[in-house]
Amino acid sequence: MPARIRLPRRPEPSSVLVVGSVAYDSIETPHASGERILGGSASYAALAASYFAPVQLVGVVGHDFAAADRRKFERRGIDLSALQVDETGRTFFWRGRYHENYNRRETLELELNVFERFHPRLPTTHQPAAFAMLGNIRPDLQLHVLDQLTARPFVVADTIDIWIETARDSLNEVLRRADLAVVNDTEATKLTGETNAIAAGRALRASGCRSVIVKKGEHGAVLFHDDGLFVLPAYPVTELRDPTGAGDTFAGSLLGYLAARGETDFAALREAMGYATAVASLTVEAFSCDRLASAGCAEIRRRRRELGRMTRL
Amino acid sequence: MPARIRLPRRPEPSSVLVVGSVAYDSIETPHASGERILGGSASYAALAASYFAPVQLVGVVGHDFAAADRRKFERRGIDLSALQVDETGRTFFWRGRYHENYNRRETLELELNVFERFHPRLPTTHQPAAFAMLGNIRPDLQLHVLDQLTARPFVVADTIDIWIETARDSLNEVLRRADLAVVNDTEATKLTGETNAIAAGRALRASGCRSVIVKKGEHGAVLFHDDGLFVLPAYPVTELRDPTGAGDTFAGSLLGYLAARGETDFAALREAMGYATAVASLTVEAFSCDRLASAGCAEIRRRRRELGRMTRL
Repeated sequence: MPARIRLPRRPEPSSVLVVGSVAYDSIETPHASGERILGGSASYAALAASYFAPVQLVGVVGHDFAAADRRKFERRGIDLSALQVDETGRTFFWRGRYHENYNRRETLELELNVFERFHPRLPTTHQPAAFAMLGNIRPDLQLHVLDQLTARPFVVADTIDIWIETARDSLNEVLRRADLAVVNDTEATKLTGETNAIAAGRALRASGCRSVIVKKGEHGAVLFHDDGLFVLPAYPVTELRDPTGAGDTFAGSLLGYLAARGETDFAALREAMGYATAVASLTVEAFSCDRLASAGCAEIRRRRRELGRMTRL
Repeated sequence: MPARIRLPRRPEPSSVLVVGSVAYDSIETPHASGERILGGSASYAALAASYFAPVQLVGVVGHDFAAADRRKFERRGIDLSALQVDETGRTFFWRGRYHENYNRRETLELELNVFERFHPRLPTTHQPAAFAMLGNIRPDLQLHVLDQLTARPFVVADTIDIWIETARDSLNEVLRRADLAVVNDTEATKLTGETNAIAAGRALRASGCRSVIVKKGEHGAVLFHDDGLFVLPAYPVTELRDPTGAGDTFAGSLLGYLAARGETDFAALREAMGYATAVASLTVEAFSCDRLASAGCAEIRRRRRELGRMTRL
């Protein structure tokens, strides 16, 4: 079993169900580039969550999915029994470029491939999950997953610009049914029309989201909750290599921590954000999931402690 | 005497010397505008510092400076004996416009007026100041003030884009001689070539600044110090009216707090940033110094406490 961050006086954690894309990405940044590297929302979220709890990954890959990439998940103990392999096509592929010191991202190529026919079906072993992450796939598929969950789980939902523009109604339903919506500042603005992150987060709650986290990249994240507001700066990273997957890493580790703690209240969410911020800082320091998969529990704990020291008023 | 925030078990605070511009501003924002309202770096900094310590303002105004504006300082107990009145001309005037939800500022008109001949001369009563704020005036004038200070004071220096472009050598000398440089993220990037705020702050220290605070507006501020890094989010403001003076307010209250505490170490600086963040949030909620001058100690203490709660990991 891979090493996990163990919380004192807690039972063995429940499993975390992660649904989303598993992809190959080709990425150019102002400083370097990576060709056909492992990516996708579910990949980052599952690897991140695996530092805290057992993980069940739900997704689809094509005939070109490399055994070496499969092993990256297996080495972190991730259950791949619901990772469908569609031999009739290739794995989801995205080619993108970051501009202006990573502040703007451009899609150069997008091949849905086997993802176009993806229909997430949960095995009976996965249906009673207590914690579920709905990565940024089509909102009607996210709803389809929600309908199969039998145990009233704690659900974190993520999305991406394109669904805000093309599938607003079902996306709204996802956000209302989730316990926690995790969106970035651009998405929060698109969803609400509010350019101020604080105003946007409040508007999302007013529109029916139970709790909301607005992620602001290098500027941290804000939690909007019944019990109050919580504002957390990012872990200071100066060796930024590739921001892809930082948000999925954040959401995955957050949910993993909640599963390990067995609590989902305001105090647990704040502490979960501390860990999520620490783990996300690893993802951006390397292409793909490399640093995330290899960093280890000690480094995550170290960054979490350092973040605590650096933000203590 | 105006109400001050009193710290438990501290003696009567030393005076804070504030040098900078006293101006009239005409400001257009996406939502409203203000005509010939009281502004300038020294105005904001002096009013902010006056919530914590006695303040001596050093600056110049012209024959058009209104008695009502003079009274705004007097009501907060600010010593105006070194505020020169130059009857031969008008007060410094700036007309500016904020675009795109306050992220971009454009200068439409700039009249130096009496400021062009300003030569700050400290009365003997002001020379032994223990705490001094060098607001964003020409760097050679900042140096001239430094040369007149007799008691090795704790010095906070601010600057503005134009001096980075036109007076780099003397500005570098100011930043090296100051105990704490307070700059915004754009200025930090211009000074160092680093676009990442963390990298820019570290580069400023490497270039000879003892301690540095990089202000990031709505995203908070970061302190770079021998004893470590401290990252503090902004107080969440949704009723943004006019960001003019927020940075000067921040620096002024920071220095005022240090004077009240009588300490300038890492712990004192962190706590000072907490108060400075609370006070700066008042400035941006109204045009000019209106909300800053009228808010009162209780509201500042309330925001400081709320900021503590909202950032406690």
